[in-house]
Amino acid sequence: MIKVAKFGGSSLASATQFKKVSNIIFEDDDRRYVVPSAPGKRYDGDTKVTDMLYMCYNVAGKGGDFDLILREIQERYQEIIDGLSLNLSLDQEFSEIHRQIDNHAGIDYAASRGEYLNGILLANYLNYEFVDAAEVIFFREDGSFDDEKTNNNLGKRLNKTKRAVIPGFYGMAPDGSIKTFSRGGSDITGSIVARAVHADLYENWTDVSGFLVTDPHIVENPEVISTITYKELRELSYSGATVLHGDCILPIRREGIPINVRNTNRPDDEGTLIVESTCTKPKYTITGIAGMRGFVSINIEKDMMNTEIGFGRKVLQVFEEYGLSFEHTPSGIDTFSIYVHQKEFEAKEQQVITKLNKLVRPDSIDLESDLALIAVVGRGMRRARGTAGRIFSALAHAHVNVKMIDQGSSELNIIIGVEDKDYEAAIKAIYDIFVTTQA
Amino acid sequence: MIKVAKFGGSSLASATQFKKVSNIIFEDDDRRYVVPSAPGKRYDGDTKVTDMLYMCYNVAGKGGDFDLILREIQERYQEIIDGLSLNLSLDQEFSEIHRQIDNHAGIDYAASRGEYLNGILLANYLNYEFVDAAEVIFFREDGSFDDEKTNNNLGKRLNKTKRAVIPGFYGMAPDGSIKTFSRGGSDITGSIVARAVHADLYENWTDVSGFLVTDPHIVENPEVISTITYKELRELSYSGATVLHGDCILPIRREGIPINVRNTNRPDDEGTLIVESTCTKPKYTITGIAGMRGFVSINIEKDMMNTEIGFGRKVLQVFEEYGLSFEHTPSGIDTFSIYVHQKEFEAKEQQVITKLNKLVRPDSIDLESDLALIAVVGRGMRRARGTAGRIFSALAHAHVNVKMIDQGSSELNIIIGVEDKDYEAAIKAIYDIFVTTQA
Repeated sequence: MIKVAKFGGSSLASATQFKKVSNIIFEDDDRRYVVPSAPGKRYDGDTKVTDMLYMCYNVAGKGGDFDLILREIQERYQEIIDGLSLNLSLDQEFSEIHRQIDNHAGIDYAASRGEYLNGILLANYLNYEFVDAAEVIFFREDGSFDDEKTNNNLGKRLNKTKRAVIPGFYGMAPDGSIKTFSRGGSDITGSIVARAVHADLYENWTDVSGFLVTDPHIVENPEVISTITYKELRELSYSGATVLHGDCILPIRREGIPINVRNTNRPDDEGTLIVESTCTKPKYTITGIAGMRGFVSINIEKDMMNTEIGFGRKVLQVFEEYGLSFEHTPSGIDTFSIYVHQKEFEAKEQQVITKLNKLVRPDSIDLESDLALIAVVGRGMRRARGTAGRIFSALAHAHVNVKMIDQGSSELNIIIGVEDKDYEAAIKAIYDIFVTTQA
Repeated sequence: MIKVAKFGGSSLASATQFKKVSNIIFEDDDRRYVVPSAPGKRYDGDTKVTDMLYMCYNVAGKGGDFDLILREIQERYQEIIDGLSLNLSLDQEFSEIHRQIDNHAGIDYAASRGEYLNGILLANYLNYEFVDAAEVIFFREDGSFDDEKTNNNLGKRLNKTKRAVIPGFYGMAPDGSIKTFSRGGSDITGSIVARAVHADLYENWTDVSGFLVTDPHIVENPEVISTITYKELRELSYSGATVLHGDCILPIRREGIPINVRNTNRPDDEGTLIVESTCTKPKYTITGIAGMRGFVSINIEKDMMNTEIGFGRKVLQVFEEYGLSFEHTPSGIDTFSIYVHQKEFEAKEQQVITKLNKLVRPDSIDLESDLALIAVVGRGMRRARGTAGRIFSALAHAHVNVKMIDQGSSELNIIIGVEDKDYEAAIKAIYDIFVTTQA
């Protein structure tokens, strides 16, 4: 069995955190490939090493003196080295970094050094081989990730070593320069490594014990989701809240490798397991509740519209022309509504309405703003009769006025439109009926 | 106060029925203008006079002898005349009809004679003036109804007479020939007359005591809807079940004249009042439940579809190209479904799927057939919290699997998709929760 363990910045922010990581690694012999982020914040108000590196780059770009910042970065690493009593000096590495930044190395080079150095440090501490990502992760000339080349090289390289640390976030461009993924890209590196070594599990160690059933700003201490499918995850990502870097899912999803999101600070918590599919009966009927504010609904009324072939297409065409993507299109008998993001819509409002009037000649168009959408997601909903009934009874009980309901073919989710003022009450009510009162 | 009373065919099928009509008319002095249909069926298996007239026309067209049929028609009228002991002979009228059909008068002429003769008879019996519709209802050369000319002439003509009978269904073309509305068009005549005389009420007397809350083939003896708005009526007409001729609503709706659908055989029943809007608190939260079988849902899945501007438009465009009108488009996060009529879709199924694959490159397309749609309609739903909760709890209790939910901006209705096999159980369950258990 092979497990790839990726550790986030806060998991590797200090010597204390490194010790936790080491305990985790050595607790399970299968954790053979480790992907570290750069040291993150040790406390609220602390600065991430990556942000300090960006500062170096910016100061250097303006011809300023970045010595002081770079020395502060080295101190952060030295503090970890001292805390772990490692026999390791990063002097040479820091001279090289100083030289490169002086010589106008790119921003990606600067940014990537946090992971690079942390990788050297972690490999030394764990006594794992250090494999520089620049040797195994490749980008194309256009800047996109070179999937095939990476997979071939990385697989071969890691086959030669039983235990290795591969720093996250970066790789090499065809010209030999360093190139990074987008911010948070260590998740992607972990996923790429997991695929290359045909891992059985990709562990993503963070500072949370997995995905929460809903937004902790709305519900106090919401439960952790124990198992979630990729599909459910995607439906929940609706809310914009993400723990994982979105792009990290695709490579290993194709391989059927599950992801386990775990908490370095609470290693006994089982975290959230993300899988392609599962027979595991979910603990609750619903897996999660996600929501988003800031929608406007454009309600179009026209007598006999459903006999008018092309009506819906024309309506959507107007929105397309103005570059507006829509979220939902609930319809009644003579009504057709379009839910769009209020911010995107506002500037184009009058043009869209004028065009709609011209193109579909509706009886009326009316706008309703300050709406929120809530997605109640769960593979268990298919099995459980009465889910919709429970949701809407709970909302009624909470005095929430339901503006829109949309449940499509997936039966994985029900989308509910409510007024902004009812948004939090609605989420609380749904959480309570499915989780609190079931616990 | 002016009331226009239109009586349907079964209300005027025999002398007994004529007596009921006369009682109704004389019970209320305001019933000043009366619009009769042709005599309908007296019993199951009987033939309507209009159908017999069509037969005359068809037989004559083939050079056959229609004497016998025409004589049978005259007997039907004579039976009424005798039953009412009227001092009236229709011999002259029947000679004229015979002569006209012999001379190849049009099909509309033949069909219209049922109302014409019934009008003469009813006017005689009530001692109301007979106003031939050919003198006051006008059509244009293209066959369409001439709204303006009719309204001017009809208003002036009826102003001259306090009480009149105007036969339904027909009028005059510019060339002086007789032209009819579509079948069931006496409802339209009644509506036109009501508008022309600025009636306070248009009574539509039939053989049912108004609109039923739901289909009596599914629910035994469903309650009658006491007051319904035009909008609700339109949303219920979804089911295809109609008591009123659809076109009859528009002329008087504009004038704000309410329609009262009543039962000639049960004149004490208050029937259903159709109004533009009303403050009347509805007796039940829901006004009616309509449904329709025979839908198929085309479920399209594609990762990140909602960020792809134009996705929905392209999907609808494919359906438009194949001349398919859609009923609903419920959507999830990565799913978009289209509900269409199965019968229309089947022949074009493979072409549509091929085109969809080509145009929107979905991850998957999956079809689900034998679906039914149910519309739960009611202006009371806006006010009543928890309607959706009650509906879906009731459906869960009845073991109905809810495939789709769509509630748009109107808040006048909730559309529910169920499997065909659950269709009747679903309607019963909704009826029971809102009507039976509330009564």
